[in-house]
Amino acid sequence: MRALEEKILKEGQVRPGNILKVDSFLNHQMDIAFINEIGKEFHRLFGNREVTKILTVEASGIGIACITAQYFGVPVVFAKKAQSLNLDGSLYTTKVQSYTHGRVYDVILSKKFLTSDDHVLIIDDFLANGCAVCGLLEIIEQAGATVEGVGIVIEKGFQDGGKELRSKGIDVKSLAIIKSMTDTDIEFEEQDD
Amino acid sequence: MRALEEKILKEGQVRPGNILKVDSFLNHQMDIAFINEIGKEFHRLFGNREVTKILTVEASGIGIACITAQYFGVPVVFAKKAQSLNLDGSLYTTKVQSYTHGRVYDVILSKKFLTSDDHVLIIDDFLANGCAVCGLLEIIEQAGATVEGVGIVIEKGFQDGGKELRSKGIDVKSLAIIKSMTDTDIEFEEQDD
Repeated sequence: MRALEEKILKEGQVRPGNILKVDSFLNHQMDIAFINEIGKEFHRLFGNREVTKILTVEASGIGIACITAQYFGVPVVFAKKAQSLNLDGSLYTTKVQSYTHGRVYDVILSKKFLTSDDHVLIIDDFLANGCAVCGLLEIIEQAGATVEGVGIVIEKGFQDGGKELRSKGIDVKSLAIIKSMTDTDIEFEEQDD
Repeated sequence: MRALEEKILKEGQVRPGNILKVDSFLNHQMDIAFINEIGKEFHRLFGNREVTKILTVEASGIGIACITAQYFGVPVVFAKKAQSLNLDGSLYTTKVQSYTHGRVYDVILSKKFLTSDDHVLIIDDFLANGCAVCGLLEIIEQAGATVEGVGIVIEKGFQDGGKELRSKGIDVKSLAIIKSMTDTDIEFEEQDD
């Protein structure tokens, strides 16, 4: 998605540890008009699939998933990090290693909101080593639901998450794939329009 | 908002500790069509204000804030819980007591995304003792920005948060205010249409 690559080049900042900050528009401040364009693009890419639910994980995926869900006309379900007092005992659970936070956390989802009838599109802001997506796939498997695809805003193509998921036959589509990045330069992988 | 009261009566569940579960449509599974109605209602209530940013706190406020922001044509900024590795040192910080999680956490917001030029509408899913909103107000004060109002989906009117905020002159508008609730019954405060 050309407009996204341009936005990353204009507003993104590379930080030590291969961290790309895009917090001016994607995951701290959110440019809602731009995220609508992202939602439309996900619908262009996955609109031919039979999607009944969009699944993401808190926190930064939620807004993107909600805006995107409008184009699919389906609900969002977001997996939660760690047990909170107002969740049932009846939960799907898995563990996810956070790249950004450098720790492992429990991810939970109420069984009520994902069943074997569901066809799921996973949406998230970043894909790096793929831990968050793998956690969501495990929850989908526990539910006996069907994965229709994985829509990612920014994939770090120099990390292995995307490759591993695609090698398992998962339909991963990333709106921008970063081939390499340094303090002064970000290069993207060529993509079909 | 009559449709919201009806939805709470139909889908809400009261749990021990004065917890109201509305996770089928608001804060775990999200009924995006219904949340659009909520966004329109917030715009009806606050659309005459000069709002430049919508502010919320992760996680369950984010989706509601994003959908609502579409009606205002402004960005969302969400405050984050706890320090993460990809945030700057240049932060507004405050502490918030979580009613649901029973603990105190740090809330942070990058100084880049809130300045003295901003006119802020706070949006959140619940208002009970008001701790989350007070934390956001403190951040707005640190920024020297202007509070235009606070839009809440569900207020627990039997707790003191709403009263205290309104007594300070804050324009708090809640789409449903619960007067009392038991295992079998939820009563709402009468509201003007």
